[in-house]
Order: sequence, then C-alpha cells, then structure tokens
Amino acid sequence: MKRRHFLKSMTALGSTTLLATQSHGDIRYLGPPARTMGTRSIHEQLEKTLYGQMQTHALTPLQDLHGIITPSELHFERHHSGIPDISPEQHHLYIHGLVNKPLKLSLQDLKRFPSVSRTCFIECAGNCQDYFKKGPQTPLQQIAGMTSQSEWTGVKLATLLRETGLRKNAKWLLAEGGDAALVTRSIPVDKAMDDAIIAYAQNGEAIRPEQGYPLRLLLPGWEGSSCVKWIRRLEVGDQPWMTREETAKYTDPLKDGTIRQFSFIMDTRSVITTPTFPSQLEKGWHEIRGLAWSGRGKIKRVEVSTDGGGHWQPARLQEPVLSMAHTRFNIPWQWNGKETLLLSRATDENGYVQPTASELIHARGIGSLRYHNNGIMGWRVKSDGSVLYEIVA
Amino acid sequence: MKRRHFLKSMTALGSTTLLATQSHGDIRYLGPPARTMGTRSIHEQLEKTLYGQMQTHALTPLQDLHGIITPSELHFERHHSGIPDISPEQHHLYIHGLVNKPLKLSLQDLKRFPSVSRTCFIECAGNCQDYFKKGPQTPLQQIAGMTSQSEWTGVKLATLLRETGLRKNAKWLLAEGGDAALVTRSIPVDKAMDDAIIAYAQNGEAIRPEQGYPLRLLLPGWEGSSCVKWIRRLEVGDQPWMTREETAKYTDPLKDGTIRQFSFIMDTRSVITTPTFPSQLEKGWHEIRGLAWSGRGKIKRVEVSTDGGGHWQPARLQEPVLSMAHTRFNIPWQWNGKETLLLSRATDENGYVQPTASELIHARGIGSLRYHNNGIMGWRVKSDGSVLYEIVA
Repeated sequence: MKRRHFLKSMTALGSTTLLATQSHGDIRYLGPPARTMGTRSIHEQLEKTLYGQMQTHALTPLQDLHGIITPSELHFERHHSGIPDISPEQHHLYIHGLVNKPLKLSLQDLKRFPSVSRTCFIECAGNCQDYFKKGPQTPLQQIAGMTSQSEWTGVKLATLLRETGLRKNAKWLLAEGGDAALVTRSIPVDKAMDDAIIAYAQNGEAIRPEQGYPLRLLLPGWEGSSCVKWIRRLEVGDQPWMTREETAKYTDPLKDGTIRQFSFIMDTRSVITTPTFPSQLEKGWHEIRGLAWSGRGKIKRVEVSTDGGGHWQPARLQEPVLSMAHTRFNIPWQWNGKETLLLSRATDENGYVQPTASELIHARGIGSLRYHNNGIMGWRVKSDGSVLYEIVA
Repeated sequence: MKRRHFLKSMTALGSTTLLATQSHGDIRYLGPPARTMGTRSIHEQLEKTLYGQMQTHALTPLQDLHGIITPSELHFERHHSGIPDISPEQHHLYIHGLVNKPLKLSLQDLKRFPSVSRTCFIECAGNCQDYFKKGPQTPLQQIAGMTSQSEWTGVKLATLLRETGLRKNAKWLLAEGGDAALVTRSIPVDKAMDDAIIAYAQNGEAIRPEQGYPLRLLLPGWEGSSCVKWIRRLEVGDQPWMTREETAKYTDPLKDGTIRQFSFIMDTRSVITTPTFPSQLEKGWHEIRGLAWSGRGKIKRVEVSTDGGGHWQPARLQEPVLSMAHTRFNIPWQWNGKETLLLSRATDENGYVQPTASELIHARGIGSLRYHNNGIMGWRVKSDGSVLYEIVA
C-alpha cells in the first residue's frame, strides 16, 4: 500500500479546511503555576473496571491506552484479601530453608544490592476467561484487561540466593505474600536463579500498594499469581508445597481427565485494541492497533486479517521489541463499509503461533480454557460501523 | 571485582539474622478491595520541587527514581504563563504557510493517522544552570531536575507535512503554543521531516495538562522549550521568525562576543543519582547509580571515578539503551570510610565525551553556561559519610 495514497484518503475526515493566518490568535489560556505533583486533564476519564462480587479484580482499559507502558494507577489488580497497607519499617523478606545462611532483609537492605530494571508484562492466568461468554457487549478491558506492563526495578533473586547459598537438594521455593490470604506459590529454583526479581519499584517510583508495596516477586513471562505481591518469605525446599493456589486454583483440567499443574508460562497472544466495542467506524482509512506478547521470549510477527481469516497481512511492530513484553503493533486499513471480521495472530521468536480456540480445545479440552486461554479473538465490524466482540471458535 | 565477594560483604548490613520458620506467620494484613484508580503508598513522599518566584518550574526528584521512566506526575515542568485547561473539543492544530494544502486537525483526526511511540528524554536547555552556584546544599533535583523521560505516542510530523505538501522554499516552521504566553519557536524543516512527533499520549495515556494536553510537539534530543506544549499552530516559512524564546532567551553568549542561536541539541551528559546529598553513607559496599543521555544518539559508555578523576571504571548500562534517551548506569563501589570525590562521564555513540566545566569555558566562555551546561558533576563523600555537591571547575 502506498503511504501517499493512505494519507490522501485520510483527509476525507471532514475537518480539513482552508485557513487564513489571522484566525489562529484569538484564544489564549492563562492557568495556575507549576505543581509538586502533576494531574490528569479533567477532560479525560480513564479508569479500571471492577470485577468480581467482592471487587477482587480491577481491569486495565487496554482499548484506551497507547504505547507499551501501562500507567501505574491503571495496572490491573487481582487480590485474594484486599490491599494491605504495609509499612516498610515493619516489613522484611526472609529467605530460609535449604540454604546455608538464612537472610532477613529490609527494603533499605535490598536497595543497596546491585539493581536491575526490566520492562515486562504481568498477566493473570485467568485473563480472557470470559472468552466464550455470551451476553451484553463490553469494552476490551472486561475481556482481556488482566494484563499490564511496567518497568520494574529491584534485585535479581539469584543475587540473594547466591548470598544465602543453596543446598544440594534445593529444587523449589515457597513464595509467601504478606496479605491476609497469605497467598503462596511454589516456584522452581531454576526460574528463581534465571530471571526472577525482587522488585521494589514500578515505572520509576515505589511499587503501588495494590501491586505489592513494598516488595513483590517478579517472574518475567509467568502467570500473575506466581508473581507474589507483598512478598515476605521465601522458603527453599526439595519439592513443591501444593498450596491452594496451585491445586484448587490455577491448574488446568485436560480432556483426558488429568490436571495440568504448574503451567506457569503465559503463552503467546495478541489482542486488537482498536477498533473494538464500542467504536463507531466511518468508511475510509483507519489504523488497526493492538498488543502482542509472549511469556517465552520476543514477539517475532503479528498478522492481521480484515476478512475473517481469508487473508493475513503482517503488521508493523513498534520498537523496542522486548522479551516477555507487550509489543505494540499497527497496520493501516481502509474500510469499505461492508460487514467483516477483524482478527490478529501473533508468532513468537520460537516459532509458536497463537492458536484458534478450536486448536486449544482439540489439544487440551474446553475445561482447560478457564486459565491460559490465548485463542485468537474476533471483532465483527457491522455495516452500520458498530464493532462487536465475536467468539472465534 | 568478584560478585561473590561483593555479596559476602553486603551482609555486613547488620540485619542478617538466623530464623526459625514459625516466626514468619504472625502478622497478616487485611485491606480494602480493588479500586478503579491505584494510589501511592502513604509511606512514600515523592514530589517535585517548585522553583522560581512565580513557580514557573517544578523539578523531577531524580535522586529518588529508578529505571528510566519518569512517572508522569513527576515529569519536570517549565511554564511561561501557567498551565492552561484546554478542552480537546475546542482545540485544533493548524498547519499553513508555505504548503500546498493547509490543514486543521482535531485530536480525534490525529488519532486516526498512523501512530508511533518513542521513549526519549525532554530536558530544559537551562538544566544545571545553577551548576556554579555556591550556597546551601540541595538534593540533585534542584540542580539537575529539569530532565525527565516518558514514552510518547502520536503522529510523525512528517506524515502531516506530506499531507499538506511543502513548497520549494519551505525551510522553517513556526510552532505556536496555546498558552497565554503564546510560546513560539522556529524549527528547521529538516528536523520536522526527520523524527518530530505531534504527541497526544505520555506513558500510555493522554498527555498531562502541564505537559501540553491535548497536543505537544516532541523533538527528540532537542531542548525542552522547542518541544512546544499545547501546540495549536505550525506555520511553514522560508526563514526563522526570531521570536522572544530564540533571541532574548535560549541563546548562548560566547566568549568572542557573538551569540550562538538555535543551539537546539542537548549535549551528552551523565549525572550520578545515588549517592547524592543528603545521603548518609556507611562503610562497605554500595551501588553508584545514575542516568546518562545524549541528544545526538545512544549512550555508548559511562565511566565512573571514585577518586576525583584519578581512575575511571566503566559502569554497566541497563538495557534497552535507546537513542536520545535516559540510560540507567550502575557500578558497585566499596567505600573505605575516607573522604573522596565521585564523578561520572558519558560518551555517546558518535564518540563525543562529556566535558569538564573548564573545557566548556575554554570553548564557549562562562557566559554561555546558563544554557547547555553539560559539564561533569562531583559528589564529595566526607569521612563522616555525608555526601555534598561539589563544583568541578
């Protein structure tokens, strides 16, 4: 497609007008002075959607965001017993069990260790669990809003574990949060020694309370519930603990009657963020935009179909493309006013291709799709310009 | 230096204690449910410092931030007539002058064009203008806090100018802001066609009012005042307009009596962010951390001296290292308790090395250093552990 042609078509927007210079100087705005904390414009009304009878979830408005950083206030939330208010003076991280030298570390202690920063997504394993739900249309955030991205800073867990030393039979760590639910997950030592981070900062400043202040475990590419918030204890052992959150929850019943457990890694996925419900399209040129990510590495390719899967075109990937990170994609599209179906399909650097729901059901059974449902999503564009979520079985 | 040794030394922090498992389960925090907007912890008190008799500046607390993203609320501010409250319904961007087809574009129009995102710094040309000021010690933010970094999203200005078409004699653009000061700057067409962006989003959401809501001009690597906020007009001409902000202000008197004008590009610089005043150091291992950036490309190397310039060691650069972007550097350092002077020195990908103030004065004269003073900064560590800013002439 020729860009020149694309741009020429864009001016059919209706507001392109010939102007005389003298018409620009009439409105001038005087305002208040600088402030110690900036604020949002009163003309913008972005917020998370609450979910769950007990307001245990808050969902990121993916359809309204740009780029790859999620504002910290809009990072999705999933709590098992609310948001604790923890004073860093009274909080410590304990590391004990099959180690040579147990450790008790304060936030201040941790800040003296060598620091690392990493921009990566955190996604709840249950994201898109309402993929098959029929009912009233909702914005994308209520279907796929349990993924968000921040620049996290902290200490590599490997740094701390080299400090404690690991005994020969050390195979698993129990990560325990300081909330009332005492959320606990068993984490393989290999991941802990690879790229795990004890994070104390998010997007430049202290982690927000709802994200685990003062400390959270960050396991890049792994399901959100394993990135234990308000982390206060790591116990090293020789086998997993079989906690509630890895037995009753966050496991995947397969079609052969067995249960898939410790399915930590978030599979490759893409979502179109615009146009989505409740967009109202006009004929002409649009940019289809979205996010793609993989818990197994970098996104290599995103393809978009504007005819329900008949043809696929590669989208542009916005640099930098980071490993285990939301990656912005976009592609221009000229809508001719006829009903059609928009789809996106991501491929990661390992060659894994985002599956259809049918392929997922064939491989694992429909019972497995409460968690780790990374199937292709569809957006039906009606001839009246409305855009509706559509189950792509 | 052997990491193993470093880590062993870190445990001299005083809080390392042997523990029994049963001591971890006594405190559990119940809290409120999820919220539509997250908040900061009440235990964190970060804010900008106001500056100027009329509160025309607000300075970023660089010494307290992590990673490379500045939270939008903490992005530095510099206003010439306060923060206008502009309704996007009443705001347009006009492009006219030496073009074939003038344009009037609303925020909604601009959002339909192909979008780009870019993470880069914006720095005031007057950052570090108090470099030589003697007086009471202040945190780093009051010396160097007029630089901040965001992920910006918008439309490439080249896309819009291809749409209007440029006449043969088009050489400069006048960029005009919608504040009461009508801040105006002349911008060369070459920069406009290269990497300039009309930005509508910052760190994922709408630009903040104090950063130019609804639209700002982003000129990556160029001085902040040229990145005109609340932009409402671009007039294309064949010569610069010689506005107040490029004649009476933002020019550099040189030692030969001439004036350097249109010195847009922010030169390569680094600042140590920790330890800085009012840190109070203990003997032992620390991590020296800082930021480096260049308006001419990527940072290639940052060297740190812990003996006042006698020896220089390369610091680690945190990936991703982006062009015209704050780049985080860090290096471990064992303080022996004796008085010393800490310095950092950045080199960009073009081989440009951050100068000393003496070199700057030799080249341009001391009168030029109100703007574009990118000289090396010093932090004196006293034997009592206090850390004081020191002029490095």
